[in-house]
Amino acid sequence: MVGAPLAGGASTPELAAAVSEGGGLGFIAAGYKTVDEVRRAIEQVRVRTRRPFGVNLFFPTKLKMDAAALAEYGARLAGEAERYGVKCGKASWSDDGWGGKLELVERKRPAVVSFTFGCPDRAVVTRLQNSGIAVWCTVTSATEATIATSAGVDALVVQGAEAGGHQGSFDDTDAAPVGLLALLQLVRKATHLPLIAAGGIANGQGVASVIAAGASAAQIGTCLMLTPEAGTSTPHRAAFANDAPTALTRAFSGRRARGIVNRFMRDHDVAAPRAYPQVHYLTAPLRAAARAAEDADGINLWAGQAYSLAEPVPAAELVARWGARARAALPR
Amino acid sequence: MVGAPLAGGASTPELAAAVSEGGGLGFIAAGYKTVDEVRRAIEQVRVRTRRPFGVNLFFPTKLKMDAAALAEYGARLAGEAERYGVKCGKASWSDDGWGGKLELVERKRPAVVSFTFGCPDRAVVTRLQNSGIAVWCTVTSATEATIATSAGVDALVVQGAEAGGHQGSFDDTDAAPVGLLALLQLVRKATHLPLIAAGGIANGQGVASVIAAGASAAQIGTCLMLTPEAGTSTPHRAAFANDAPTALTRAFSGRRARGIVNRFMRDHDVAAPRAYPQVHYLTAPLRAAARAAEDADGINLWAGQAYSLAEPVPAAELVARWGARARAALPR
Repeated sequence: MVGAPLAGGASTPELAAAVSEGGGLGFIAAGYKTVDEVRRAIEQVRVRTRRPFGVNLFFPTKLKMDAAALAEYGARLAGEAERYGVKCGKASWSDDGWGGKLELVERKRPAVVSFTFGCPDRAVVTRLQNSGIAVWCTVTSATEATIATSAGVDALVVQGAEAGGHQGSFDDTDAAPVGLLALLQLVRKATHLPLIAAGGIANGQGVASVIAAGASAAQIGTCLMLTPEAGTSTPHRAAFANDAPTALTRAFSGRRARGIVNRFMRDHDVAAPRAYPQVHYLTAPLRAAARAAEDADGINLWAGQAYSLAEPVPAAELVARWGARARAALPR
Repeated sequence: MVGAPLAGGASTPELAAAVSEGGGLGFIAAGYKTVDEVRRAIEQVRVRTRRPFGVNLFFPTKLKMDAAALAEYGARLAGEAERYGVKCGKASWSDDGWGGKLELVERKRPAVVSFTFGCPDRAVVTRLQNSGIAVWCTVTSATEATIATSAGVDALVVQGAEAGGHQGSFDDTDAAPVGLLALLQLVRKATHLPLIAAGGIANGQGVASVIAAGASAAQIGTCLMLTPEAGTSTPHRAAFANDAPTALTRAFSGRRARGIVNRFMRDHDVAAPRAYPQVHYLTAPLRAAARAAEDADGINLWAGQAYSLAEPVPAAELVARWGARARAALPR
């Protein structure tokens, strides 16, 4: 079992270490952190466990963006800024410290480095592999699986429509995302690589299910968010107790991500432009202020479609229990 | 393995019998047929096989409908009528011959009667059960599973977002439909009934996957549509060879259904009202004419998200092969 990198708050060194200690593979989310913060997170995981773990990096892409729509969206959020008594952030593009983070992981040599939002070219992949690092790439379609396979990666994280947080697609179209089970079958036809299945896996039977579908491992994310080791904010944890539906939205970050439907999403989804990470930085102060005020209606409540099954139990216990349950449901 | 009822053309007595002969449970789709046509279909299946089979009925619901939006949609389709040289149909409501079909199945006693678009009350369920018929209900959420369980049905068909054709939801909201794997886990928590998993199952590993997730059987639909026994039209079969995405739309029937994206869907989805089965009858002549002209751009190209994996092989062979593959992937 693989612990999903949960960029933006829920990911902590404690959580990554606990997943690895439970017999899984914990992940550090490098996204939105500085190089120094990632370095410290790696060191903190190593203090807590001698087991292998992974680091996830956002691949920097510059998708076509409508500057006027972005400016309009910024203007639209003036009322939100007033509501929370802050100013919107600067809607600028960033490569999320790509070069520095790549050098860092090459030096620190975690067992696995995974990529989201795109796949680096073969030279980068080989460089990491030559350092003894296994390279994984997140894909959401058979086409992306073919591209990542050509780049020489070691395995693919296959992310279904059910998944919470950002869809890790290379582009960010409006096409309906494909459900995990259908996607596993489609991707299996496109590549011989080992597959790690992600999206809506919420118990040991869910793990067994994706293994039976041909995946080598299950990646769990949303169901780790109520564990004590996760950095999930108090209002975010509280929102898990309601039964509101989830939806994909660009309202918070400018890229499609799945979260529990709340006021901010309802009010702004319709106007949110495709502009990542510009909108992420634009709304960051609003979300921080809402979080501080424990106002779940102003926060990106990332959650997968099965979030209501999440349990507030220690991560290592959860991983060990689900693993045992999955093994019991499968041959050998 | 259960052969999905494929109302509207693909379902034939030959297909239902072939699925049952292959070791599965074939289904007759009573939807859109007259009582007499259903009776003949049942008799024709019985000529071909002595094995059990099922009959699927549309549960008649009268959802809230915007008459003005429906009238506008009718006016909008004038150009389509001109294009295909026909008149639009009458946009009227119908209960799809509910009473007559219910009496028919009670008399004919197929092994299973399943319902789509809602669940009959306990009196109807008991009446069928007293005739020795197992009663199933299609559900798309944990809430619907709870309702159907209370009505006393014997099993639930759990339909994921991936499925082709109509979403069998009781209402017809705009809420994001839930992926099959997440849905199985959510429904399992809401009911003790046996579950039949449907949506995006496209090979033997897909079957094994839903069994491992706790389902008692897999229901396959889209992947039967290229079999020689299916009544799938020539242009619909041809559309399976392309790689266009699928989407949910009300453009053809007034209820959300998944099909391969084509011109008609692109042109009219945005204006299609929630009005089932009125829009079904409104567009029926257009679709018939497009079908006759082998114009795939004017047809409801129902297909699940994994449609590109469908194979043109005899249905009994497909069912037997997938069953063997699934058994090999599971314990015992």
